[in-house]
Amino acid sequence: MASHKHFVPLARPQVFFTTDESAQYFECGYSCDHAILLVLDSRKIFFTDSRYTTEAKEYLASGTILVESANLLESMIELLQKERVKSLAFDPLQVCVQEYQALLAKLPKCTLEPLPNFHQQLRIIKSDEQVALIAKSQELNKKAYKRFAKMIEKTIERRDTPTELYLHALARQALEQDGSYTLSFNPILSINANAAKPHALPCKDRLSDGDLLLFDAGIKYKRYCSDRTRTAVFSQGRIHFGKKQKFSDKKLQKIYDIVRKAQDNAIINLRAGMSGKQIDALAREVIDKAGFGEYFSHSTGHGIGLDIHELPSISKRSEMIIEDGMVFSIEPGIYLPGIYGVRIEDLVVVRNGRAEIL
Amino acid sequence: MASHKHFVPLARPQVFFTTDESAQYFECGYSCDHAILLVLDSRKIFFTDSRYTTEAKEYLASGTILVESANLLESMIELLQKERVKSLAFDPLQVCVQEYQALLAKLPKCTLEPLPNFHQQLRIIKSDEQVALIAKSQELNKKAYKRFAKMIEKTIERRDTPTELYLHALARQALEQDGSYTLSFNPILSINANAAKPHALPCKDRLSDGDLLLFDAGIKYKRYCSDRTRTAVFSQGRIHFGKKQKFSDKKLQKIYDIVRKAQDNAIINLRAGMSGKQIDALAREVIDKAGFGEYFSHSTGHGIGLDIHELPSISKRSEMIIEDGMVFSIEPGIYLPGIYGVRIEDLVVVRNGRAEIL
Repeated sequence: MASHKHFVPLARPQVFFTTDESAQYFECGYSCDHAILLVLDSRKIFFTDSRYTTEAKEYLASGTILVESANLLESMIELLQKERVKSLAFDPLQVCVQEYQALLAKLPKCTLEPLPNFHQQLRIIKSDEQVALIAKSQELNKKAYKRFAKMIEKTIERRDTPTELYLHALARQALEQDGSYTLSFNPILSINANAAKPHALPCKDRLSDGDLLLFDAGIKYKRYCSDRTRTAVFSQGRIHFGKKQKFSDKKLQKIYDIVRKAQDNAIINLRAGMSGKQIDALAREVIDKAGFGEYFSHSTGHGIGLDIHELPSISKRSEMIIEDGMVFSIEPGIYLPGIYGVRIEDLVVVRNGRAEIL
Repeated sequence: MASHKHFVPLARPQVFFTTDESAQYFECGYSCDHAILLVLDSRKIFFTDSRYTTEAKEYLASGTILVESANLLESMIELLQKERVKSLAFDPLQVCVQEYQALLAKLPKCTLEPLPNFHQQLRIIKSDEQVALIAKSQELNKKAYKRFAKMIEKTIERRDTPTELYLHALARQALEQDGSYTLSFNPILSINANAAKPHALPCKDRLSDGDLLLFDAGIKYKRYCSDRTRTAVFSQGRIHFGKKQKFSDKKLQKIYDIVRKAQDNAIINLRAGMSGKQIDALAREVIDKAGFGEYFSHSTGHGIGLDIHELPSISKRSEMIIEDGMVFSIEPGIYLPGIYGVRIEDLVVVRNGRAEIL
């Protein structure tokens, strides 16, 4: 038998609470920005205030107990006291010091169990149904890229050079389609030197012939996120977001080709049983060897699902073993400050031990 | 002399850190979603990762020290150790348990001083310049409401009844103006019974003649937020977001008039020296007396500035003394579940002891 390393999933805690919207939605089909979900063995109790109770009644999965309260934490603590709960798991990355100290003071007989990122861990292996939702989200996202390219071309026909800010608004229209979809994050759209800032904010710089346009965007479909980046050339009024790009600047073309090769190398060669850092290295070694290692300043990828960034991390330091059912981005980049930046990003799911592009 | 109560401002802590973007922007003119700002007596040190350093260099106020780091908290702790800092203030509503425990473990000789919401307290009295920015933000917001009304009318001329989702997308276009402005929050737009949910999400319900449309929206101008709500009737293809509205449903008109009266009562009669709860009561007593008290389920208002919700709170439980220079919303509402909801919201600044509408 092959010495294939396996991912060891976290055991689900019997009693936990969460204020995280993705976790709430996953557990009970509804979330809002002011709620606590308490999972108490087989019971799920959703505490929220009066602004949200009408909607909560409509959307909460049947069996979920709804509690309206003007003080969510206090109401939860009262219930935990009444039920004499002995152990309560929570996410120390999400619970603030103030809440934690209230729990310590008011539940002296209950052990508080900090489990960093526990709910992302519970969601890390996606079911076929969940993978299908992410795939559908990415499919709609790809269509939006095509629509956006057409919208840019039409804009160019009508008016002179649009700004990044204008293009950013146009991109959101293409992605949202008259309110049919929400964004999974505020898109990143940057021209030339601005693309050297991996998380640039749009500015008043204008798109001109021969420019590089980096576009990183995603939507949500039934709450599942998509994410994709393309770096494209705008030439003679035309643009497309395919991976084949012809830049007139030879150094830029070289860099683009290196990034593409780095992405290919990771996608083709990753295997279930590798660690996140081994997969990161597959992309990084291509860029390192080409002499641009210092300009690839971020991680190779991140998990995606209900959250735009979730586990697993595909980074230099990630020891997590990658397994069938995990979904994440592969997005190497090279950023030359003041000149330009290139990033190419796709999503993959691990199936039968290998990466499949979504 | 009148026994005018005064607001006692919080003394600025000498050493504090914050991950809050509004606090960072206020202190040093730049923020991003992965940074720590450490204020160390007269020095300001901004820790961020390589994705943001190019932009940080460009925008950080001169004199701010920029530190690039792959582990922000660790880098800050190292500096605090080196400088032998004895006391460090932080916001226990914003710092998570994990970070707090790292600080406790690695800074045993430093007193950690929890100050809930301290930076909002430092920003609570607005300068004339800051009030002018909020006023400008609200002025642009009002113009967007007018543009939105026209866009609705044009849509009606072109196609049949638009959905809430479509109108929501249209509203964002009106507010953002081709990317010129960002939203201060995701607008709330709801028709008839949906308006009975104070924080409704847009759905596929369609706008028809005689419908009630509740619209709650704001933008940011130079990072300062605006916020405004109108409840309007859509009639014979026309809509306007003025406060004078004529609903054909008599009970609805009665409710609308009560909410208007409640808002007027609070705005006209509030005085510097009152507590938040006294001002809340000015609005609430009108609604209570009319017999709809149980249907006014939220607070009368919230402070606004760099954050969409900041101090002071104008609520049943707010003991905070209101003072010249504070800016907040006055937004009573009545929500009849399954029927309709009405809310009217404006922003006020307290000047010379009285409210001025922005």
